[in-house]
Amino acid sequence: MRCVFLSKSLDLRDYLGTEIPHLADRIELVDHRDDGTDADIQMAIAWKPPDDAFARYPNLQAVCSIGAGVDNILACPSLRPDIDVVRVVDPAQAQMMSGFVIWHVIWHQRRFATYLAQQRDQIWRRLRQRAVQEVPVALLGYGEIGQRVAADLAMLGFPVMAWSRTEKPMPAGIIGYHGHDGLADMLARTEVLVNLLPLTPQTRGLLNRETFGRMRRGGYLIQVGRGEHLVDADLLAALESEQLAGAALDVFVPEPLQPNHPFWRHPKIIVTPHDACDVSLTAVSATLRATADAVEAGRRPPHAVDRAQGY
Amino acid sequence: MRCVFLSKSLDLRDYLGTEIPHLADRIELVDHRDDGTDADIQMAIAWKPPDDAFARYPNLQAVCSIGAGVDNILACPSLRPDIDVVRVVDPAQAQMMSGFVIWHVIWHQRRFATYLAQQRDQIWRRLRQRAVQEVPVALLGYGEIGQRVAADLAMLGFPVMAWSRTEKPMPAGIIGYHGHDGLADMLARTEVLVNLLPLTPQTRGLLNRETFGRMRRGGYLIQVGRGEHLVDADLLAALESEQLAGAALDVFVPEPLQPNHPFWRHPKIIVTPHDACDVSLTAVSATLRATADAVEAGRRPPHAVDRAQGY
Repeated sequence: MRCVFLSKSLDLRDYLGTEIPHLADRIELVDHRDDGTDADIQMAIAWKPPDDAFARYPNLQAVCSIGAGVDNILACPSLRPDIDVVRVVDPAQAQMMSGFVIWHVIWHQRRFATYLAQQRDQIWRRLRQRAVQEVPVALLGYGEIGQRVAADLAMLGFPVMAWSRTEKPMPAGIIGYHGHDGLADMLARTEVLVNLLPLTPQTRGLLNRETFGRMRRGGYLIQVGRGEHLVDADLLAALESEQLAGAALDVFVPEPLQPNHPFWRHPKIIVTPHDACDVSLTAVSATLRATADAVEAGRRPPHAVDRAQGY
Repeated sequence: MRCVFLSKSLDLRDYLGTEIPHLADRIELVDHRDDGTDADIQMAIAWKPPDDAFARYPNLQAVCSIGAGVDNILACPSLRPDIDVVRVVDPAQAQMMSGFVIWHVIWHQRRFATYLAQQRDQIWRRLRQRAVQEVPVALLGYGEIGQRVAADLAMLGFPVMAWSRTEKPMPAGIIGYHGHDGLADMLARTEVLVNLLPLTPQTRGLLNRETFGRMRRGGYLIQVGRGEHLVDADLLAALESEQLAGAALDVFVPEPLQPNHPFWRHPKIIVTPHDACDVSLTAVSATLRATADAVEAGRRPPHAVDRAQGY
């Protein structure tokens, strides 16, 4: 099946590179053209597609993201309501995210910033160490990735809470919250807040002054969702007032993070370059194959998102 | 039961502080005196006891350490062969150690030193990330603490190996090695080496040039055993030659680490002040009670070490 590349920010052929040979028996990758239409194209792969991209393909049935998030595609003005938007679900990505989150949780719990500073000054001083049981961690978002992060943190002994839009069944040892009131209840018990939410109109700007203010004083933010979730100025104020003790930021608006943005040099912030986790190219390939199969069979592709909910 | 304090480095009464009231119904804590003898004392609690300490107590039956290690007591010249030496076994300590080790393993796997350096220089550059499956971790020592560390690392997806002096049954997913040949076999497959061994004449100096040379090039050392396990100059040489990419050191000879020791300022070494984990005072209390019960009943106390093996 022919599949068109749609991106204004990435060279997808370069990105997919070595994986293309593995797809060649199933999918023929086609470059996007800015003019005319191509009625033969039924399938696309996209990351931040150009605004009018979908207008060129009147018979397009499905578009695959190259990540777990599809906000970059849903934001495209030419996307028609009947096109299935497919995200990549990758267990290896969840595992990668989990390690990243665990590292930051322990950085906060065990006060590694203080250890590094002490070493720099040649200070030998033992710190009061808190047991994992004393550091409750709350996840915003409880999809495939959140479930893995929650399970791993709970196995390490941290008290774990997870919030989702709608009520979900929870495994033993993880306390679930949902809805607006549930969020406030959870935050009141939260020391470390991990943002794993998809970006939707409802979640945009959720990491704000009110949210930080509801947390336990001296809390910590791990922001691995989307830059648009965070109100930058509110984070700086929460750190200034010591309502938050620190933050780990992996996503920003815009990316790359602007030169001389105050986050870069902030002593309580760790900046990483949107690197918490990638989907594997193996998982992208598998998603493309499964989508091609579904389109040919006239079925809805696996992992097509709920367009109304945005994820 | 009366129990004497023996330490030349710690004020044990200050250390045990708030726990003493909980013991008062069972154990009367007595200060050590430098002269005379006290034939009534049957039990001691010690950390680095004075050289002639045990000569004062001709009827002493058992001495408890305040940690998992007893090398500090076995080194005392006045310790008689018939005195039981008891160590503290504390599940919470194993959990604390596990978090500390996991943090350093992920620091190495995910290249956090590079992230921190990039942030300092305001560089936005994504790094090649390796999956957990690509980073084999080997433990030296597989006692209560090692078993917990191994299980947690395996659950996170790291390939885990563990070496012990004698062959031990291993759970699924953890590859066991033992003896001299087993050590060489394991090291050849090792990227991250975690030292959790007790200090004995056989393990002293084990972290040396030969050991580092057998590991995969670009490996990482996590040294949380005893300072005497490490040949300092051999570590510096292994880092210089890039045989090792980095090291986390929590224990030293002597402690505190000497001012201006090259470890303090080494860009590839993280120094922490013997803080990877402490036993809880609750666990120390429980050990003292159980030892008092055993001494009164004429039994061998639980967790009395094998004096010939040294642990």
